[in-house]
Amino acid sequence: MRRTRVGIINVTGYAGVELARLLYQHPGVEVTSVTGRSAAGQKLGKVFPHLAGLDLIIQAELGEVDFAFSALPHKESAREVIPLVRGGLKVVDISADFRLKDPAAYPTWYGFTHPAPELLALAVFGLTELYHSQIAAAQLVANPGCYPTSAILALAPALRAGLIEPDIVIDSKSGVSGAGRTLSLGTHYSEVNEDVSAYALEGHRHLPEIVQELNLLSPKSPVRVTFIPHLIPMTRGILSTCYANLRPGKIAPGKKGKDELMTLYSGFYRGMPFVKVVDVSPHTKHTYGNNDCIIYPTTDYGGEKLVVISCLDNLVKGAAGQAIENMNLMLSLPETTGLEALAVYP
Amino acid sequence: MRRTRVGIINVTGYAGVELARLLYQHPGVEVTSVTGRSAAGQKLGKVFPHLAGLDLIIQAELGEVDFAFSALPHKESAREVIPLVRGGLKVVDISADFRLKDPAAYPTWYGFTHPAPELLALAVFGLTELYHSQIAAAQLVANPGCYPTSAILALAPALRAGLIEPDIVIDSKSGVSGAGRTLSLGTHYSEVNEDVSAYALEGHRHLPEIVQELNLLSPKSPVRVTFIPHLIPMTRGILSTCYANLRPGKIAPGKKGKDELMTLYSGFYRGMPFVKVVDVSPHTKHTYGNNDCIIYPTTDYGGEKLVVISCLDNLVKGAAGQAIENMNLMLSLPETTGLEALAVYP
Amino acid sequence: MRRTRVGIINVTGYAGVELARLLYQHPGVEVTSVTGRSAAGQKLGKVFPHLAGLDLIIQAELGEVDFAFSALPHKESAREVIPLVRGGLKVVDISADFRLKDPAAYPTWYGFTHPAPELLALAVFGLTELYHSQIAAAQLVANPGCYPTSAILALAPALRAGLIEPDIVIDSKSGVSGAGRTLSLGTHYSEVNEDVSAYALEGHRHLPEIVQELNLLSPKSPVRVTFIPHLIPMTRGILSTCYANLRPGKIAPGKKGKDELMTLYSGFYRGMPFVKVVDVSPHTKHTYGNNDCIIYPTTDYGGEKLVVISCLDNLVKGAAGQAIENMNLMLSLPETTGLEALAVYP
Amino acid sequence: MRRTRVGIINVTGYAGVELARLLYQHPGVEVTSVTGRSAAGQKLGKVFPHLAGLDLIIQAELGEVDFAFSALPHKESAREVIPLVRGGLKVVDISADFRLKDPAAYPTWYGFTHPAPELLALAVFGLTELYHSQIAAAQLVANPGCYPTSAILALAPALRAGLIEPDIVIDSKSGVSGAGRTLSLGTHYSEVNEDVSAYALEGHRHLPEIVQELNLLSPKSPVRVTFIPHLIPMTRGILSTCYANLRPGKIAPGKKGKDELMTLYSGFYRGMPFVKVVDVSPHTKHTYGNNDCIIYPTTDYGGEKLVVISCLDNLVKGAAGQAIENMNLMLSLPETTGLEALAVYP
Repeated sequence: MRRTRVGIINVTGYAGVELARLLYQHPGVEVTSVTGRSAAGQKLGKVFPHLAGLDLIIQAELGEVDFAFSALPHKESAREVIPLVRGGLKVVDISADFRLKDPAAYPTWYGFTHPAPELLALAVFGLTELYHSQIAAAQLVANPGCYPTSAILALAPALRAGLIEPDIVIDSKSGVSGAGRTLSLGTHYSEVNEDVSAYALEGHRHLPEIVQELNLLSPKSPVRVTFIPHLIPMTRGILSTCYANLRPGKIAPGKKGKDELMTLYSGFYRGMPFVKVVDVSPHTKHTYGNNDCIIYPTTDYGGEKLVVISCLDNLVKGAAGQAIENMNLMLSLPETTGLEALAVYP
Repeated sequence: MRRTRVGIINVTGYAGVELARLLYQHPGVEVTSVTGRSAAGQKLGKVFPHLAGLDLIIQAELGEVDFAFSALPHKESAREVIPLVRGGLKVVDISADFRLKDPAAYPTWYGFTHPAPELLALAVFGLTELYHSQIAAAQLVANPGCYPTSAILALAPALRAGLIEPDIVIDSKSGVSGAGRTLSLGTHYSEVNEDVSAYALEGHRHLPEIVQELNLLSPKSPVRVTFIPHLIPMTRGILSTCYANLRPGKIAPGKKGKDELMTLYSGFYRGMPFVKVVDVSPHTKHTYGNNDCIIYPTTDYGGEKLVVISCLDNLVKGAAGQAIENMNLMLSLPETTGLEALAVYP
Repeated sequence: MRRTRVGIINVTGYAGVELARLLYQHPGVEVTSVTGRSAAGQKLGKVFPHLAGLDLIIQAELGEVDFAFSALPHKESAREVIPLVRGGLKVVDISADFRLKDPAAYPTWYGFTHPAPELLALAVFGLTELYHSQIAAAQLVANPGCYPTSAILALAPALRAGLIEPDIVIDSKSGVSGAGRTLSLGTHYSEVNEDVSAYALEGHRHLPEIVQELNLLSPKSPVRVTFIPHLIPMTRGILSTCYANLRPGKIAPGKKGKDELMTLYSGFYRGMPFVKVVDVSPHTKHTYGNNDCIIYPTTDYGGEKLVVISCLDNLVKGAAGQAIENMNLMLSLPETTGLEALAVYP
Repeated sequence: MRRTRVGIINVTGYAGVELARLLYQHPGVEVTSVTGRSAAGQKLGKVFPHLAGLDLIIQAELGEVDFAFSALPHKESAREVIPLVRGGLKVVDISADFRLKDPAAYPTWYGFTHPAPELLALAVFGLTELYHSQIAAAQLVANPGCYPTSAILALAPALRAGLIEPDIVIDSKSGVSGAGRTLSLGTHYSEVNEDVSAYALEGHRHLPEIVQELNLLSPKSPVRVTFIPHLIPMTRGILSTCYANLRPGKIAPGKKGKDELMTLYSGFYRGMPFVKVVDVSPHTKHTYGNNDCIIYPTTDYGGEKLVVISCLDNLVKGAAGQAIENMNLMLSLPETTGLEALAVYP
């Protein structure tokens, strides 16, 4: 039987190469076409030696495929994805171009008018833990951002259970690969090594996406989110520390309350293969290269505040891995197909 | 004229070696005695090649000095410092043993009954920005912890001005040298490299110290502090991101409010040589090896929350440098003596 | 059909956990027993969260298995492996205890008298590129050291072709995981980060193993090897730069000679799945987490010296991956089974 | 008395900012003019926050000064330095433009015809350990490259004593700051972190400089040098491992011979403040931020080969620090002025 032919648009960014790496071992599909502007015409394995096993030439235009991923930057992605979707192809878009339901958010946050606002309603937000059945039926899935994935998964059980006040702080720490493969002083080795800093204090583009999804989880109490991302000297990984006041009386004091949190979170994510709820503080290292999101729900020392720590690999569960998870559902394949690798430790 | 003879008790930890490094170039004092248990009898420059310029033997007992620093761990430090203080010597204790005013806090947080609670009243908390004149007159100074220094300096102006609600989140990111030179799996290279994690969620020992000092700055509204430290893969540096809701109407909306914050913070720290108030997000790298604390006060995207980011070198302003700053005041030397080096960048 | 039951002796070191990680996805075998002294009685996934997928308890003694790996340190490994081999079990020993053919080398280099010298003749040196058929027929395979694997593969084609003078310099750079999980000041994060140093200048234990194998490749001209390993601040990876004078007239001058080297090396490794001969300087990153050894043969600027650069992941091709490669041959499985994962880049 | 006014041409590269950092604390000179193309018109402390203590505006053209450093790239540096020298100013050029005595080397290695070959004879190679008196009398000093400094200092005593055969291997490992502040994929954080690779195998530009100086040390036996630089994941530091066969009978066998090497090297560098000859394997960390070159001369395991390991901070002894050392001599200041800082450890 022929394997599903899959294309990767813009294979030359980090999300694109990660798609290629993960799909190479996927038993149900075959990557048959990869595109990339600057490197068009070159062998994929010449530009990325670790991908030499895929015998492909980087093309300027996508060939005939049964399924496509777009790993283009925002705005450009919409331009390429829209005709594909209109042509009937199933697509997972890793960019932000179909994540926000409100077309008006695009000029504000991304600086362009959305060219196909009608597709925003069609597109499903690709967080399988929240939209499993919708994704399975979708033609176009908007793959969530790396920060939103870590933050929404950390807060969903508490918000849906009405456990917390809607005034939320999300303090995220990200490895440098999240900034992509494009050169900048902020990702120049000697500048980032032995350094930590906060950035995007004037408003990070992932904020509206976080707010949109948290509000859907908390329809009665609109959230107020303070989200500050930080860059730390490592390549892969995001750890988000989320803070919100517990509503009085919602959980028991002390150890008993923490156990109740564990029960709530474990129950919420039961049967979901890529979320691990744990009872010790997690390490990004334990997700290195794999598709897990590890979540630790607890309270602060005083016991009045919920503290949830979540971590994941920004290029896998935060990008390419989650995109494949979505593809699996859209193609009626088992959700974990091709994503079974354990984290590379140490 | 004879230079003041200075001793370092426990020179073999990272705070101790940093004291030796910085004091080597201090024109007003001379390190004449250094102690260390495991390495006693060895040449300092043999154990720490970069200190070969100090021609000293590590001793088991402190020799005759005019001033002493203790870089011992808590509990042990008190034991060594108490007789020195009773003997009339001026001492800066880098451990936590004289930081907390409430003797009852020691069994709770440090697991021992304080052997000289009467000295807790005598000891001055060594944050020069808050206790300048008291330090100048002190015989015993309790050098603040690295996290408390970054957090208290970040929040002091806002708290004293009554700008914020007392519900405060402090999310700190620290390099690994803060965990000291003692071996542990948590500081083993392959475990920490390419990793970030939160720790001490059950209550970090620096919490009572932070609460004590923030409460003194906010006598009418006792604070409620959530403090979560994180370990990140770098050697030196702490960056603390502090969050609190602004009291309504305290600052103007938008850009104007941010300017008011700058004015407030700049005014608060005017004339204080080691605090730099800046208007862009700071990097720990800009404090590498020097005694600065860089502070950036701003608001979150929504404008309702104060966000203050502070950073410093945990071994300098967070330990040895601040200790020398305190010594300078106690010896009536100019505050910056020996601490003028610029950060080592990149 | 029942899968082959495999045991890992000393799963708690880095080679042991890497075996568990890789074998978890091996379709032909099942890990049914893992041992470890300090952690005996604990769940494997509790000690190593990324291995939670293997539902195993760490035991004090190996259970009944069809095949065993020993990841114990030298001397201890022999003690455990000898009875297993005498009992008829097939074993791959990752330690050095069966690598050296000369029993007299053990007191000199490893400080103990070999307890079963007769097994040294029986044991096969587990470098599949040189001993493919012997490994397939072996009951006991001595898995090569990480440095020797990189050095021998780099030099084998040139030596066997008689291309070089036997005076050889091997300058190796290793990530820190090669030093294992046991704590030491030399692997303490703050000591190793931002640092490079040479070590074992008085003679590294991998030297006799390198010399033994290079001499077998160059029977007429015994080699004289200078081998200096260096520790660099990264977790995984070894890169060896090997130098030797070319015998006059053996290759053409200039570009043509370099092409001849490529032809020689490519021919030598034709059909061997884990050696990639390349024509640009390789990066350890391109082997991160996978079983490849990448080799670049060239000459120096003057053209009179052969320079061969080889790199691999010290925990995979340098330890656990190669051990599984050996197991595959010993069990008549396809050589690449379970080892198809691409490198994790970036 | 007025302090000597010093200018830095191209302050915006890493060598330039390091000059500014070190000169800030130099008691004998004052930086009064700094230039930089892209950043002209901006405050120095705005572009480089750690330099805020220098109250200077980056200019397009050098102001009136008594002494100048050029930290421009090669070719551009000559263009700016030549008129200054002809105008009588004393200059230290950190670029390669006056290091090579043979004008014909410039087209070959640097791709341009030297615009003032007559100045090549006038210029002194700025290695104070070899050319102390010439530097003191020089008007124009060519500051050595970072790799050549480490290699020449490692080999000079052995070569001058006729101890070794002239067939020399220099295997160098460098931190990433040596590649400068200009963006490139090869210095992009995610590409360099957790990676090591060799580069410039077709001939590094520092090779002719190394050969020129080693030949001057070994006039009877012209050297044949194989020099392979490697990039390792750290910001600062170079470690060079140098290999050459010992001439028979030149030193005693075993420990005695190693002692003779120590005696030779210690004697050679007696009274030279920035070279430390040591008897254990050195770490780049022990030179972090200071002007030392640490050298360890020994033999390999077999005792037939000299192995010398040298390390230094590529931005200090390998660039800006050495430039200031040269300036001190040229201005008749004590050689160590402004360069007394100890290494920043850990």
